[in-house]
Order: sequence, then C-alpha cells, then structure tokens
Amino acid sequence: MEFNVIKKSEFDRVRELNSDWSKKAQLIADMCRFNTLVAVKKAGSGHLGSSLSAADIVVYLYLHELNILEEGLDSPDRDIYFSSKGHDVPGLYSLFYALGILPEKKLLGLRRLGGVDGHPEVRVPGIESSTGSLGMGISKGKGMAWAKKHNGNKGNVFVLTGDGEFQEGQIWESLQAAAHQKIDNLIAIMDHNKYQTDMLVSDVNNIEDLVQKISAFGWYVQRIDGHDYAALKNAIDTAKSVKGKPKFIVADTIKGKGVSFMEKPEVETASGKTYYKWHSGAPNDDNFILGCDELKIKIQNLAGELGIPEIQIPIIELEKQESFKSTKEFVTDAYGDALCELGKVNKKLVVLDGDLSADCKLRKFEKMFPDRFIENGIAEQDMVSMAGGLARMGMIPVVNTFASFLAARANEQIYNNATEETKIIYTCHFAGLIPAGPGKSHQSVRDISLFAALPNMTIIQPCNGMETKLATEYCVNEAKENCMLRLIIGPSPETIELPDDYKFEIGKGTVLTEGNDAIMFAYGPVMLHEALQGAKYLHDEKFSLKVINMPWLNKVDSNWLAGIVKDHYKIFVLEDHSVIGGLGDRILNSLASTKNIEGKEFKKIGIFNYPECGTPLEVLKFHGLDGESLAKLILNKSEIKTDKHIGSRYTADAPQ
Amino acid sequence: MEFNVIKKSEFDRVRELNSDWSKKAQLIADMCRFNTLVAVKKAGSGHLGSSLSAADIVVYLYLHELNILEEGLDSPDRDIYFSSKGHDVPGLYSLFYALGILPEKKLLGLRRLGGVDGHPEVRVPGIESSTGSLGMGISKGKGMAWAKKHNGNKGNVFVLTGDGEFQEGQIWESLQAAAHQKIDNLIAIMDHNKYQTDMLVSDVNNIEDLVQKISAFGWYVQRIDGHDYAALKNAIDTAKSVKGKPKFIVADTIKGKGVSFMEKPEVETASGKTYYKWHSGAPNDDNFILGCDELKIKIQNLAGELGIPEIQIPIIELEKQESFKSTKEFVTDAYGDALCELGKVNKKLVVLDGDLSADCKLRKFEKMFPDRFIENGIAEQDMVSMAGGLARMGMIPVVNTFASFLAARANEQIYNNATEETKIIYTCHFAGLIPAGPGKSHQSVRDISLFAALPNMTIIQPCNGMETKLATEYCVNEAKENCMLRLIIGPSPETIELPDDYKFEIGKGTVLTEGNDAIMFAYGPVMLHEALQGAKYLHDEKFSLKVINMPWLNKVDSNWLAGIVKDHYKIFVLEDHSVIGGLGDRILNSLASTKNIEGKEFKKIGIFNYPECGTPLEVLKFHGLDGESLAKLILNKSEIKTDKHIGSRYTADAPQ
Repeated sequence: MEFNVIKKSEFDRVRELNSDWSKKAQLIADMCRFNTLVAVKKAGSGHLGSSLSAADIVVYLYLHELNILEEGLDSPDRDIYFSSKGHDVPGLYSLFYALGILPEKKLLGLRRLGGVDGHPEVRVPGIESSTGSLGMGISKGKGMAWAKKHNGNKGNVFVLTGDGEFQEGQIWESLQAAAHQKIDNLIAIMDHNKYQTDMLVSDVNNIEDLVQKISAFGWYVQRIDGHDYAALKNAIDTAKSVKGKPKFIVADTIKGKGVSFMEKPEVETASGKTYYKWHSGAPNDDNFILGCDELKIKIQNLAGELGIPEIQIPIIELEKQESFKSTKEFVTDAYGDALCELGKVNKKLVVLDGDLSADCKLRKFEKMFPDRFIENGIAEQDMVSMAGGLARMGMIPVVNTFASFLAARANEQIYNNATEETKIIYTCHFAGLIPAGPGKSHQSVRDISLFAALPNMTIIQPCNGMETKLATEYCVNEAKENCMLRLIIGPSPETIELPDDYKFEIGKGTVLTEGNDAIMFAYGPVMLHEALQGAKYLHDEKFSLKVINMPWLNKVDSNWLAGIVKDHYKIFVLEDHSVIGGLGDRILNSLASTKNIEGKEFKKIGIFNYPECGTPLEVLKFHGLDGESLAKLILNKSEIKTDKHIGSRYTADAPQ
Repeated sequence: MEFNVIKKSEFDRVRELNSDWSKKAQLIADMCRFNTLVAVKKAGSGHLGSSLSAADIVVYLYLHELNILEEGLDSPDRDIYFSSKGHDVPGLYSLFYALGILPEKKLLGLRRLGGVDGHPEVRVPGIESSTGSLGMGISKGKGMAWAKKHNGNKGNVFVLTGDGEFQEGQIWESLQAAAHQKIDNLIAIMDHNKYQTDMLVSDVNNIEDLVQKISAFGWYVQRIDGHDYAALKNAIDTAKSVKGKPKFIVADTIKGKGVSFMEKPEVETASGKTYYKWHSGAPNDDNFILGCDELKIKIQNLAGELGIPEIQIPIIELEKQESFKSTKEFVTDAYGDALCELGKVNKKLVVLDGDLSADCKLRKFEKMFPDRFIENGIAEQDMVSMAGGLARMGMIPVVNTFASFLAARANEQIYNNATEETKIIYTCHFAGLIPAGPGKSHQSVRDISLFAALPNMTIIQPCNGMETKLATEYCVNEAKENCMLRLIIGPSPETIELPDDYKFEIGKGTVLTEGNDAIMFAYGPVMLHEALQGAKYLHDEKFSLKVINMPWLNKVDSNWLAGIVKDHYKIFVLEDHSVIGGLGDRILNSLASTKNIEGKEFKKIGIFNYPECGTPLEVLKFHGLDGESLAKLILNKSEIKTDKHIGSRYTADAPQ
C-alpha cells in the first residue's frame, strides 16, 4: 500500500496566489487536513480529532502572524508557537510540510523510528516545546515569554491549549502566576472542541464558564469562532494591542472539523450519553477513503472559488484487506472484568478514572456500578487525594490512569495518602515501553522507581489475563498495604502460558522455560514475550535459558530467589522500565544480602536513555530488547545497548 | 526550665458557664492561644502565625458546630474537620487538650518523638487527615464527603485552607471537580491571614479576587471576618442550608491574632517591602514572656466580663540564658553566596523560588539581581515548567524549594523538561531526615529515588560549605546535563573537614578517616557527622572505620570505587534517604558490574519506613542512625533498625 500526500508545490501555488487571504488559508487548511489523514492512516495511529479542529488556528498563525519564516527557526526574535496538548501534532506536521519545514519523508514517518514523534518533540525542527502530558504549556510559554522580555527580544509567545487540560491544576497555577508576573507577550488560545478523549468536557468535569474563570484570573479574554479567519485575525490583533497582562482567546471549534462524520459524536441510546470516537487512532479503510473523498471535493471547490486550476491530489488506492478482529489478549480486559466481579461482592470498592475509562477498560464497571465509579477528568492530583479521603472513610479506592501521569504527576499525593496507612490501589496503565508510537510523554519507564521508596507499597505487574485477575483480587482482597498494579495497554504479543502448578505467591516468580546456561527474570507480556523469543533463538544455538516470570516488582522472597539462581552463573533481569529503580535493583539487593551474588555475573537489561518512538519492533530493536538482540547479548555476540553515549563510566548502573 | 499550660479544668469551668456564647468562645480561643505559645516555645519551633489566626474558626467549629464530642471520634456520622495547610496544628492541639481529646503530656510533646507531630498526622486522635504539603485538603475532603453521601452517613466535612496554598494548582482542580460532582456536604473555610511564609500573598503571587474566582468555579461563596463569632455562625448556618453545590467561606483573619506584636509585619525601609516574621519558629524568651503577658491580660479581662473568677494561668519563669549567635555552618549560606558570585559573571543565570526565599538563602541573590529572580509562589509545577521555557530560550534556571515538594510534586514537569535536553538546576532544600520536627510531610527521604531514573540528571549532595560552593559552580559552569543539588536546611552538626588534597571530581568521593576494618560511604553534613561519630566510638573499641564522603549520588566512577573497596570486607552505605533508590543502590550496582562485590559484605543503612518526628538526636536514634548506633551495628552488637516490622522477608532491600 502506498501513501501519497498533496505535494508542497501545490501548497506553494496556493500561497503565491494573489487572492482572498482567508479563502486561501481555508484551502491550505483543508489540504493540510487531507495530508494529516494520510499521515495518520499510514502511521496506523495518531490524533485526528484535534488535528482537524486546530487546523484553522495554526494555519492562520503560521501564514499570517508568526514571523518565523522571515526570522528563521532559531532567531531569538522569532515568534513562538507550540501546542500544550500536543495531540494535534499530526496536523502541525502537515502544515510544516506545506511550509517547507518538514520533508515529506518525515511527515510520512509519523510515529516511526527516525520519523516524527506521536507527540511534539523539540528534536523536530520547528517544534518549540516537547509536550503531550497535559497542562504544562502556559507555564512553559510564560518562561519563554519572560526570557524574551528579559533579553530584549522581539516576538510573542503563542500557546495552543486543549479544553480537557483545563481540568489540570497546573493550568490555573500558570494562569494566576502569569497574570501576577504581568507576562504580556504571551497569548494563549484554546482549541475548544468540546470533547476530551471520547466524552464531552461538560460531562466529564465541566470547565465553563471559561471567560468568567480566566478573566477572574487576571487575563484579557476573548471568545471567538475558531474556524473563522476574520475572527482569528481580529482577536489576535486585539490581544497584541493589550498591554500589562497576558491574553487569552477561547476559540470554539469542532472536533474532527472538515470531515463530516468525524464532526459528529455518537449518542448511546440506552444512556443518552454522547461518545466521540475520533480522538485517537487511524480510521479503517472505508472511513479513510470517505474522509479523503470529502476533503477532495472541498479542496477542489475552494480552488474553483479562488479561480485556480485543480489541486493535484493523489489518488487513494488501498489494497482490499481482509478485516479481522484481533483475538489477542488484553490484560486490561481481564483487569476490567476482575473489577466487575470484585465489585459485586465488595461494596467498598470504588473505581476512579482520569478521563481514560475506555482505554483502561473501566467502562464495564462504570455501567455496572455507576454509583461507585468516579470520573474525575484530567486532574490526577485531585483524583489521588480524593482517593485518600475515600480510603480514610473505609472505602477501597482503585485509581486509574496512564502510568506516566499517575506515578509522576500525583507522586506527592500518593506519598501523602500512603503515610496515612490506608489501602489504595493505583493502577498504572500504559506502563512500559510499548506502544511506542505516542512517544516519551506517554511511554512510562520510571514508574516503578517513583513508587519504590514508599515503605507500604506492593508493586505488581501481571504477565497475562489470568495473572491479572489474580493480582487484582490480591490487591482488593488480601493486600494489607497500598498496591501499584502495572498494566500494559496494548494487546499481549502472545498469551504467556503459565505452568499447571502455577501459584500466585507474594515475592515468588514462576519458571516459564527450563534452562541451565543462564537465567532471566522478566515481567509483563511485552518483555516476557521477548525473553521467550530470545530463549527460542538461543535454543537453536544450543544454549538453554531459564525464563522466570516475576510479577512482584518490589517484593522478592530471598529464599525463593536464592534457590532459583543457585545453579546459575549468568543472571539477567529484563526490565520494561529504566535500568534504574526497577526489578533489577531489588533482585540485586536481595542477592547481595544473602550473598548469592558470589561468583555470578549479574546484568540488568532495559532502558538506559529516553524511550524511542516507533513501531513496537522498531523500538524494541533500537533498545536491544527484542528476542534476537537479547539472545545475541546473552551469547556475548553484542553489547548492551545504551541507546546513545551517556557517559557510562560515570553511571554506576551502565554495563561495564 | 518548666513549661506549664492553662489546665483543662479551667477550660471546663469556662465551657460550663451559662453566659454569652461568643464571649466564652473568645475566652477559650485566647486561652488556647496562650497554651499554643507555651507548646511552641517548649518545642523550640512550630507555626505560631496561623495557629493564632485560625484559633477563632476552630474554636467556633469544635464548640458550636461539630458533633464529634457527642458522636465520638470514630463515628461514621461524625462531622469532619481538618486543616489542609496544617501549619496551624499547634493551635488545634491546644484546643484538643482543652476538649479532653489530647493529654497535656502530648500537647507539651509537640514535635517530640512519641509526642505530637509538627504537621497533622492521622495517628494523633482527632486528626482526620495527614497534611502539611499544601493544596491537597479540598480533594481529600471531597473524597470523605463523597463517601459519607454514598454510605448514607450524616455529618459535614469542613476543610480549613490557607491563602498561600491557593497558588497550588490542585486547589483549582479540586474546586472545579467538587462543583461538577455536586459535593454539597463539603464546606471549605479559608483562614485568609494575608501572609504566606514571610511575605504578603498579594506580593508573592496574588490570589484575589477570591470571591469572584471561587464563585466562577461553581461554589457558593461568602466572605466574612474570621474573628467575628456571630459572622462565623451565620456563614456556616447559611452554607449548610445551600444544597447542590460545595460551599466556601473566605474568612479574613489576622496572622498572629491575639499577640499585638505578632500581628504586625515589618516594613523594610529600603525596599518598602513588608516581611512577616512569625510564620514559623519559636519566639525568644523576651518575646515569649511579652506574648504570654499580653494574653494573660486579655484572658482575665474576658473572664471579668463574663463575671467569673480569675483563670488560673501558670507563671512563666524562664531561667535567664546567655543568648548567643550560633556559629555553625549552613551549607545553604554557601549556596546562596555561590549563586550571587556566579550571577555576577553569568548573565544567563535565573533563580526561581517557591515562597521559601529566606529558608533557601536566596534573599541575597533576590536583592542583588531582582531582574533575574523569579518569585513564583507555592506553585511548584508552574515554576518547574516555567524553568523549562527559560532553558529553551538559553537561560540557566536554578529552581528552588523544599525537596519533598520539588521532587515529588513537580516530578512529571521535571521529566518533561529533561526530555528537552536543556540544562536546569533543581536545588532540593530540606533534603533528608533532619530537622525532624516538621514531620514526614517535610522530611524528604525519597527525592534521590524520584530523580534517579532520569538519564540526563546528575545528583549531588555536598558535605560542607566549601563543597557546596564547588558543587554549585560545577552545576552552573560545567555540567552538560540537568543537575539536582541536594542540601540540608539546618545547621551542619559540625563542619566536615576535607583533606588538603581534596578534589571535587565527578564520580569520586573523598576519604575522611582511614580505617582497615570496614568502609562506610555517606553524604551530606548530617550523616557524615554521624559516620564520623561512629568512627570515633569504634576507634575506642579498636575498630578502625574508613569514612568516605561521596557527594555524587548517582554517578559512581567504577574504577575509583573498585580501588577504594579493594581491601575491605565490610562495606556500608549510610543514606540520608530511604534505603531504596539512594546512593547504596548505585554503589551496589557498580560493585556488581565490576565483580567487586565478590567476597564482601554489603549493607545499606538508612530509612526503612516513614521518617519519625522529633528532635534530631531522638529521631537519629530511633532510626538507628546516630553515631553510637552505627558503631554498634558495625560491631554486630545490634541489628539494622527497620523502625517497625515491614515484612522484611518480602522486602528485597531489608537487612537479612
């Protein structure tokens, strides 16, 4: 299958036209929308909804406001634009391509290794700030704006925000402080497309009345139609003329704008609730063609109105593929089901969510026990502390969101709760390296280390559906202290088979393959799959690897461990995590304390630098974590991959 | 010196009086103020300013609103009160004593081991939530209120907030979500005493107009005089009658209320800036007597107005003590001075502060370079991300606040900045176990672990003023990556002497004492002092301990380490941190990777559970970290103290 975009030369042709500026901008925006669709379809994932809703805003800014094409991307006097929410970056890449900032190959390398990241990354030319974790943009923009003023540089700082991220407290911190600090070269624009993930902002955690709120925080606020170029021009001109305070433009937009069926949410008949399905993910073939066709017509009509010959639009031809429903296991399904079963028996169980109910497979619980499901929106700190209050009243709260956001952003709140010695279960979804498409704002390879120093915390990562069920039951029914449950979000590469005599016993792992030549501890479906692949590869080389599933990431039964490593000289720990602060450190400590490290070779394999963006296999290979690379490493045919030189001599945990 | 309080029987006498209720409440509040002064003076530290400002509010609540004396402290139908800011807990303890909830011994055990903690702790009867880190209270309260409703329990949840903490984003998260969730059995009251730490809230980061802001967030808001009992009664009665939304009362109060000289800030002649000096810390003898005398007169006058005999007030007699200025070293002084020197040369250096300028010794820089000092208030996430923006524009930002708040609360923002591969210096003040009086919300024993998995981060803790200067210079002038500088906040127990041939070389430590029988790695003035004390003790026992100052907490030069441990069988790492994720783990990894662990005994000594509250020596002894305990441990005359049983068999890092 080949994917082609509308060429830059076509954009040039439109830009050079001496004609109605707003109609030209509209045409360019729709051409960008077309290319965005292609890029996301090729990538297999990406955020369409907000790429489409924000298109008119960014096209206006880059074509008619920002001085970067004249000043250059590195000029200290350049205007600065970046998106705080970051989801909309495929749309921005399309525009970058149209403006000659990004080559075609990069645009079509969306979410691929060596291409462009699934969320904004400063390593991509033109990207001013790495974002993707919500709520940081205005703070960062205010730092940039402050520096500009301090250094006497020209240029304004424009920050695009989402609406959902106005549930993040940091937004309000930054609004308040920016006003106090009188940062008046900062203009924030909200792409207010009304939907966050898959639900209405007003249903999840209402942020209105925005004009009233943001004005109360000392900003100069305007509210406009974000698809109306004249309104955009007028609002930005006005904002620039206001001095002494930061400026805000609430731009009302339509999520999925430009593709009719992506503009419409679905209404669930039973509940009457509205769900939006184009927040992330690529469209299927039919919808892709439908969307492209619709945009084509719009583009040619606009070209006609502008009196120019047809725009050259590539013909979309998709090879007809058998569509089949994946039968792969999701550990999150097992988790969601287990919660429902536990919820039937245990009336104290309360499930909290941070706007990721569908991804975290909580919707079943949500529908089954609406009175014990708390949708808290994108407000992790509040969610965690609320769970603390619930636990103090005798409930068993189960807190859910992506690992990166839960472990890092609400870390102090988790600590505070833990000091109260209640029991709370923190389920860290999207843990580990894979999927790697969203990039390093979403890949979570520090979460174990962030929970590790809490004395009353048990950290568990199950390897398959069955173990997930047992782990969930353990956390709810048996654990006496806080639990962190670590789950991968994607499908398991294979369903890890557990032996018939399998027992889920605290501190003890399970032998998955017997082997005499080396032993490898791993956890979770992704890395156990690679370990098992490695074992197969090694088997062909007459090398037998004992692979251990070790779901207890911070509780190691020293006696069990001593027994299992007894006859092994080579010990490997494979982390779906940084090599610092994960299971490896705990195993090493146990081995050292029982003197079972004597005479052994001990190696941790995992992430040494930041996780790369790309397809699972690309990224596993890049980090040397795919089965074949692991096998070669074990055979001493290659070295541990530390991704790039990070001064290994001075890094205690780097391989020697 | 003996400290006595006004006895509970005197409070009982007033409470039983059949007389004007608000005058009685006022008298009880002033009697509590007196006892608070005594408790804080005895403790040697504590937060007077807000204990005094909040006194009338809490007295009104406990005497006239909360049902806990009738329902009992454990009743699910009880009303709940707690303070989100937590500073005001000495005042609350005084009231608890007056009500018979807390024995006299506990009240006079403020900030002592086995007494009552410097910030609220649920282990103290009557304390409903552990607080002390700002901004979490409304979230926790909303969890409690939700649970009450869900479980069909009676009672309202009252949360007292500070004003400074309205700079924390979590407050706005919780306000927004509580309104969306229609939590209407929640009443928040702000003790709006206008000062945060030592400056006006309106100077630091203005939070007004509060009524406008909080109303915009969907709460029912009233604003009253927080020292007027009739107004308090009226506002709370009104709040309770409003249904369908959460309720807020902004209570304007006077910080230090009741002691005239504590009510007044000082105006600095040169700058015209207003500084308040009674936020924390005990008064000196003269001020203590002055304050007590003033309160005595008020109390007896009120008693007279109520027509009752004199209140029995203990006579304050302080033995005249020579007052002398401590000559002890503060590493923070060296740090502040170094920043000023560096600031003269490096115009890119920008210092950011989170409302702790005086404590972090930044005031000199602040006055010297006001245009490169950014006071951001209590908004750590915003401060860190703002630093990210500054760094992207080529500045070198140095971010300052207490370690607990910086490392945990802004962890994801630190990660996001780090991924941009700029250079930012994070100075984590008040790192480690000591001072232990403020309690576990402030003691920071997880911060190293929270920075550890960032691949481009150097973590340094200097041991004395000179090394602090060198470390600061290294971070600003030499480091190519982010730095975390870890500093103790209190005076150094001794000035650690470094040898003449001392060099500050990355990854390498310094031998402080020679010894053949064991080697101990430690860092920072507190633990190195204990290690050296231990070495002296051991010396008397004919056991020679080699003590190493190792300031590089995550960079270990493996060659250097291999050389230094060569002739040692026993290796100890002493952490001013949890035993998980600190220097010990890095040293162990280095030893394992170079096989220098072979034939050795390796032990980490540090914090195994939550840090205890008390005087430095009490707490060091409790955790087995004082010199004598260390010596006994090394001689195998005692075991590692894990504080309490934490299931060591299942904890990899627990001693065997």
